[in-house]
Amino acid sequence: MRIIELNKSVTASNDLDAENLRAELKERGICLINLMSSPGSGKTTLISRLIRDMNEEVPIAVCEADIDSAVDAERIEALGAVAVQVHTDGMCHMDAGMTRRGLEGMNLDGIRLAFLENVGNLICPAEYDTGAHINMMILSVPEGDDKPLKYPLMFSVSDLVVINKIDTLEYFDFSLDKAKERILRLNPGAVILPVSARTGEGLDALCDWIRAEVGKRD
Amino acid sequence: MRIIELNKSVTASNDLDAENLRAELKERGICLINLMSSPGSGKTTLISRLIRDMNEEVPIAVCEADIDSAVDAERIEALGAVAVQVHTDGMCHMDAGMTRRGLEGMNLDGIRLAFLENVGNLICPAEYDTGAHINMMILSVPEGDDKPLKYPLMFSVSDLVVINKIDTLEYFDFSLDKAKERILRLNPGAVILPVSARTGEGLDALCDWIRAEVGKRD
Repeated sequence: MRIIELNKSVTASNDLDAENLRAELKERGICLINLMSSPGSGKTTLISRLIRDMNEEVPIAVCEADIDSAVDAERIEALGAVAVQVHTDGMCHMDAGMTRRGLEGMNLDGIRLAFLENVGNLICPAEYDTGAHINMMILSVPEGDDKPLKYPLMFSVSDLVVINKIDTLEYFDFSLDKAKERILRLNPGAVILPVSARTGEGLDALCDWIRAEVGKRD
Repeated sequence: MRIIELNKSVTASNDLDAENLRAELKERGICLINLMSSPGSGKTTLISRLIRDMNEEVPIAVCEADIDSAVDAERIEALGAVAVQVHTDGMCHMDAGMTRRGLEGMNLDGIRLAFLENVGNLICPAEYDTGAHINMMILSVPEGDDKPLKYPLMFSVSDLVVINKIDTLEYFDFSLDKAKERILRLNPGAVILPVSARTGEGLDALCDWIRAEVGKRD
């Protein structure tokens, strides 16, 4: 497993770096999805399911960003997808320069879909453009339906909100209707897809949505 | 509900501010606990249980820190405890100056135990001394037993790690033994208490531990 130790990008403009990265990836026919959530919402498990369901048709690469450990990238590599682990040197988010260095650590020949699995954090990652074409976040049922009230920026910048672990709805006090209403009040254009990465419920709709987005960048 | 809008503390030394705040609170016989966790791990629910079980005997005040909303402080106030909501102006953590301003927003006469419910985040809050006497964190079962591997600093700085939502152990792939081993490897002195804030399991041991800590500062 390749592990890249990052440090803070020294750059005049993260927004400019992000625009350049986004354009270069589009030129190469690669759609980059920045996946954000709280720790333990199921980012790696969801990506694992998508690899199983889509990797043959749409080759996938994954850049795993964490403060420490390589457990996530090892899980992804074991599934046959291209993966790299980056360590953020204690930092709570990824920026465009860090994302570029992570992507450069993988062989992207033939890749059409790349995930940046951002650091588990509902606050700081929302403030930095990573150069991704799509911001995707996960809200998991055990976290509660009040999270859009407390972390509004994250829900505002996300094109797609996946509500994960819906197989546990009966064990938690979580209202799908309330969650959707609170997300749409912040972000009327958000696409909201309830799924269970464990049981597979809702995965077809998610794969269809992602396939259409990849198609737009071919 | 009183809401205090904070901004970044302008101070030469957060560590010095923290030491001063800690000493002043001890002088007043108040034990301050800094409670940290991921979003949705059950911080407010756990504090609510502790208020129900301990407030008559040990009067409690709670400073709720969030990016936005006042839902947590409203829940606490409805239980009859002293509470204030602070908004962090988008910031991902509380420092000692911010904590002081939050505490100044409450009437602490007769209070013996104060909670700072920090922003939901496993990274940044671990880097700032808030002036608390005790760092307490929650790891909830749905987040997974691998979190100590990914967020080592948070587990290293916590005196007490509460493993919450143990009533859902059968629905999630979470090993209490693995979690404990990983926490103790980072922090051999950590006290680890498994509880369910919902069912009340393990709460007696937690209350006993907190009562003993409050007693040390009388």
